[in-house]
Amino acid sequence: MVDALHSPLSRLLRPASVAVVGASDDALRIGGRPIAYMLGQGYGGRILPVNPNRPTIQGLPAFESVAALPQAPDVAIVAVAAKLVPQTIAALGERGTRAAIVFSAGFAEASAEGVVLQQEMLAAARAHGVRILGPNTLGVVNPRSGFYGSFTSVVEMGFPKAGGVGIASQSGAYGSHILGVARASGIGISSCVMTGNESDLHLADMVQAFVDDGDTEVIAVYAEGIRDGGALMAALENARRARKPVVMMKVGTSAVGSAAAQSHTASVAGNDAVTDAVLAELGVVRAHSTDHLLDVARTATRRIYPVDNTLGVITVSGGAGVIVSDAAEVHGLAMPEMPAAAQGRLKELIPFCAPRNPVDCTAQFMNDLGIAGLFAEAVVAEGGYGAILAFFTYTVGAGSIAEGLRAQLKAVRARHPDRLFVLCILATPETVRQYEDDGFAVFEDPARAVAAIAAMTRFGQAFARGPALAPPEVPVLALPDATPNEAQAKQLLAAAGIAVAPERACTDAASAVAAAEALGYPVVLKILSADILHKSEIGGVLLDVGDAAAVRSGFELLLARARAAVPAARIEGVLVAKQLSGGVECILGIQRDPVFGPVAVFGLGGIFIEVLHDVVLRRCPFGEDVAEQMVRSIQGAPLLLGARGKPPVDIQALAAMLARLSQFAHQAGPRLQSIDLNPVFALPQGQGAYAVDAVIELAPQGKEQ
Amino acid sequence: MVDALHSPLSRLLRPASVAVVGASDDALRIGGRPIAYMLGQGYGGRILPVNPNRPTIQGLPAFESVAALPQAPDVAIVAVAAKLVPQTIAALGERGTRAAIVFSAGFAEASAEGVVLQQEMLAAARAHGVRILGPNTLGVVNPRSGFYGSFTSVVEMGFPKAGGVGIASQSGAYGSHILGVARASGIGISSCVMTGNESDLHLADMVQAFVDDGDTEVIAVYAEGIRDGGALMAALENARRARKPVVMMKVGTSAVGSAAAQSHTASVAGNDAVTDAVLAELGVVRAHSTDHLLDVARTATRRIYPVDNTLGVITVSGGAGVIVSDAAEVHGLAMPEMPAAAQGRLKELIPFCAPRNPVDCTAQFMNDLGIAGLFAEAVVAEGGYGAILAFFTYTVGAGSIAEGLRAQLKAVRARHPDRLFVLCILATPETVRQYEDDGFAVFEDPARAVAAIAAMTRFGQAFARGPALAPPEVPVLALPDATPNEAQAKQLLAAAGIAVAPERACTDAASAVAAAEALGYPVVLKILSADILHKSEIGGVLLDVGDAAAVRSGFELLLARARAAVPAARIEGVLVAKQLSGGVECILGIQRDPVFGPVAVFGLGGIFIEVLHDVVLRRCPFGEDVAEQMVRSIQGAPLLLGARGKPPVDIQALAAMLARLSQFAHQAGPRLQSIDLNPVFALPQGQGAYAVDAVIELAPQGKEQ
Repeated sequence: MVDALHSPLSRLLRPASVAVVGASDDALRIGGRPIAYMLGQGYGGRILPVNPNRPTIQGLPAFESVAALPQAPDVAIVAVAAKLVPQTIAALGERGTRAAIVFSAGFAEASAEGVVLQQEMLAAARAHGVRILGPNTLGVVNPRSGFYGSFTSVVEMGFPKAGGVGIASQSGAYGSHILGVARASGIGISSCVMTGNESDLHLADMVQAFVDDGDTEVIAVYAEGIRDGGALMAALENARRARKPVVMMKVGTSAVGSAAAQSHTASVAGNDAVTDAVLAELGVVRAHSTDHLLDVARTATRRIYPVDNTLGVITVSGGAGVIVSDAAEVHGLAMPEMPAAAQGRLKELIPFCAPRNPVDCTAQFMNDLGIAGLFAEAVVAEGGYGAILAFFTYTVGAGSIAEGLRAQLKAVRARHPDRLFVLCILATPETVRQYEDDGFAVFEDPARAVAAIAAMTRFGQAFARGPALAPPEVPVLALPDATPNEAQAKQLLAAAGIAVAPERACTDAASAVAAAEALGYPVVLKILSADILHKSEIGGVLLDVGDAAAVRSGFELLLARARAAVPAARIEGVLVAKQLSGGVECILGIQRDPVFGPVAVFGLGGIFIEVLHDVVLRRCPFGEDVAEQMVRSIQGAPLLLGARGKPPVDIQALAAMLARLSQFAHQAGPRLQSIDLNPVFALPQGQGAYAVDAVIELAPQGKEQ
Repeated sequence: MVDALHSPLSRLLRPASVAVVGASDDALRIGGRPIAYMLGQGYGGRILPVNPNRPTIQGLPAFESVAALPQAPDVAIVAVAAKLVPQTIAALGERGTRAAIVFSAGFAEASAEGVVLQQEMLAAARAHGVRILGPNTLGVVNPRSGFYGSFTSVVEMGFPKAGGVGIASQSGAYGSHILGVARASGIGISSCVMTGNESDLHLADMVQAFVDDGDTEVIAVYAEGIRDGGALMAALENARRARKPVVMMKVGTSAVGSAAAQSHTASVAGNDAVTDAVLAELGVVRAHSTDHLLDVARTATRRIYPVDNTLGVITVSGGAGVIVSDAAEVHGLAMPEMPAAAQGRLKELIPFCAPRNPVDCTAQFMNDLGIAGLFAEAVVAEGGYGAILAFFTYTVGAGSIAEGLRAQLKAVRARHPDRLFVLCILATPETVRQYEDDGFAVFEDPARAVAAIAAMTRFGQAFARGPALAPPEVPVLALPDATPNEAQAKQLLAAAGIAVAPERACTDAASAVAAAEALGYPVVLKILSADILHKSEIGGVLLDVGDAAAVRSGFELLLARARAAVPAARIEGVLVAKQLSGGVECILGIQRDPVFGPVAVFGLGGIFIEVLHDVVLRRCPFGEDVAEQMVRSIQGAPLLLGARGKPPVDIQALAAMLARLSQFAHQAGPRLQSIDLNPVFALPQGQGAYAVDAVIELAPQGKEQ
């Protein structure tokens, strides 16, 4: 087991000593800012400026070279010209330093020569056992220890306070922006790390560092392009197991955004729907604005994550109750009624109150503050809700009632410390802080409060999630050397336990007739060639072939069409398949995502996929439980469950096929580019599901991604 | 023409004199707060306290009764016990007062007796020519004149500053909450009016008052239940014509929310999709949170409403550029590239910049602030964008560059004062105010900034909109006394110019056969009875009837089924219709909305409407241009435009039918409850569209809503 406290990553966040190579006496220069910040913020470790030209730097004794340092610093900040960085890293490694924060720019982000220079730097780091944050990074901020391995100027507006939120950002400017907004909102930070060019340490490493970091309770991530999907997924899964919530802005969802992300970081933006699916699977809440990111992070520092997605609401304004109800519906929070007995008692207290949920105690409470306490206690103690929201708006600041109301609410809070309790108030920063000290999460905007509560519930459900079913056992099959034709693809899938429609490959008309007689009419005839993947486009499929004569003429017709359309195609014959009917057409597929690997896709056929793009995605592999959830989650699911008077289809068979497909894809390795089962006929319940067509695309041997 | 300045509504916002009936010497009581507020805020008019028990109130001479007042006050605040309110209103009317703000509660919101009391009060008001705001209202706040006809305690946290945003709210508590958030955000207010029980003055009146009010530039509305849809629509249309943007929170979108809204205000919540459609039609931006409401209102006070929905972005962070691009896509703003020549020049300035759009000037500008100005000028002057967003985050606050950067940006702003220019910065309130004074709209969160920009564009497009086509001329037709059967319904619609499938009503089998022969086989047979609206449910429709024998047996079968299923039904025969094929099934309908009147519905048939609820709504009547936009706007529109290799359908015929239907419904008046044309066959282009079934539901004579 790694000694987390003394690992290079841990030292990076909280070093006992830090060298600044390229240290400046000017507190506004890149090599001067970290020293000025640390001196000002009471960094307790030793600061070792390295500068060949000055005996002291900002009042500290300076050293003329890395070799001249009196000790091996835990961490080195490197702020020298880019071309000097590789030798500096080598010198640091020789001196015994194991982690460096490289501020210097002019590497892979800048030019082709910079790419080479970055490789040289990395080679020096690897050779000498030094881990690198950067280059081109704004570095690390750790308010608790006062360690500022950063030249971000956002702290000129004020230094952040210490707290439980760890921020990891792939952008220096935007990471600093988030840090600045967090400071202005009074959110405490464990560390803020900006990963720069990610030559060595990636976003995933920093997420893992926060999982291991005892000071970090909540992880807030800003991502532009994920380079190492496997490592990130592992770190996120570790966070889930450690019950550390992760909220992530992953930008680049739009076509324009993706282009901008690429021009900016030259990294792989990935398919956004895949990112959504992977983050949801791992219990990560995805934020689409800085406000949402920090709302969720701040609320999460309460460390109360309800598993039950119900919301009880106390309000002094019917209107606010409606706003909360609207937002709850959008965010998937249920608002069941209060128990009848409790409603009766509340009605006795205030005859004109609304006691259901939202529970509206009306402005009446201002005449008798005990009523506010009784209403809140009833909702918390008797409603059985996973979370509570109380809207008291500006009444908490009204001079005549402020103290009394706070005492009432504080008492209820103290009796139920484990319940997530969010207050919506309009008050001075001082009053807000008091309520936060009492244990409330505090918001102004009720709609934003509800979004944050919903996020806590998603964390709670992710943390509570038991192990899913294992993927089904599928034999490990050798892939053919080249992309298979339809019959070969189906044989491979059938060997993996995926049901395909009965069919035979035939090389002459006579055997086609024999096959049709054996399968039973009507049959489907399809041209068979690995060089013709999209048969319908060349007229290579004949439906409803009803007798022997039609089979014979169809056989010749398909061969003629194929020769005419793709003269170079190697034609292997004609596939004779039983024509299925009475089912619902589905599509099952696999796409290889460059970041996250094979991803399974499920949807209904025809217009649903082509016009409505109604599909669900999931990273491979997974078991039948997850597969069934996927099948039931699409917009058109009612069609599978028996809409419009039709019988429900065989959901279990579909789920089994999807799960087996996911395991097959997982085992197939990186040569598998895609699988397309289109259509799959889902027959009525108990009658199974059958792939009618199958296309498997493989990368050539040795050419996988 | 009404004298707006001296109308009762204008006086309500800015009276020259105000009586306070039920005035209190205690500045914390309901009858004391308005006096204390006005004295503190320098109200320039005369305050006339009415109190029979004290010679002075808060240092002002008091009068023992309304009759004893030395003048007729422009407005009276009424804060006496509910049962005394009717006589107080009568006395005020006799004294010559034309507007009263009734704080008193205990009316329709409280009990059945309260409903009666409210009617009495209203009768007194009508008899004496007094307009009433309330009862049960938190009243009116007008910071510019210092008029506080309100007892809201939100001002204890600070009084709002005067400005251009008028707030009209149906909730006192939530209206005050909005007022408090606006004050904390530095948003200037013209007036804030809370409408209470709306016994006389409705939300619509206050919106119209803001349209007429010279101090109000932007109208922010909080609505729970709209009582008078016609008046509100008229006021909103007047706002659009006056180029006053309206942003509205209309709560109660969820099932739970609607229930809460009803228990709260006993008002009609209306169908939310209809509300969405009506507000969009009238150019109102709908907000779903207080933050969004005030973001839009604040930005709108710049009074720049671009018609062109393009966005140019200058950023110092690639990440922020991506966030903005993502948000722009969500909000429908296009981000075309910069002209090539301008890109070339920017590349010369900073070789590693991203010059397309977003234009990323990188941190390089911090070394040469002129670069920030040149980049901003290029985007504003050469990009041709409707709106500009510049992300400079915390750099505006960095001591070393703050002043220089502001000078650069201010100069660009000054050269293009008519361009909507939004800054995303992280700065002290002082710095934010300076940039606002320079003419920028200022935000922290780029995603929120983009949402506000998109709202400005929607205002701009609504203001610029030319007149739409008039609804088609449709003869005014008398409705039958009772709900018509299918044949009668189709006759009525055909008379209105709506194409129905060729068909004949037949009372015996022989005439049915003759009709079928005349129409051509196959035909459809349908039972004909005004008592059987949903024929398919009783097996009352036979498709694909192919010859005379089948017509004969089908005729008898339908009669037998109808008699068995609905013994009491008056059976009028069987409808013989030509069976149409080859088209796309659509649904056209009319629903009468209790708030907004007849609303037209268009969608595709089958799963699209039943499973996907893919429909578009629009208030009646409208012309063919709007109808065609509707048809093209549904999710499944590709199916009409020729998806999956099929020919496009006759969109013009569908649009004509929909427009005629809307005009028919408009002219039909309130007895018309609904029309259901399901299905309508839209045939290929040039071949028309035909209603195959038609149901018209009418309220009995004299029973319309």
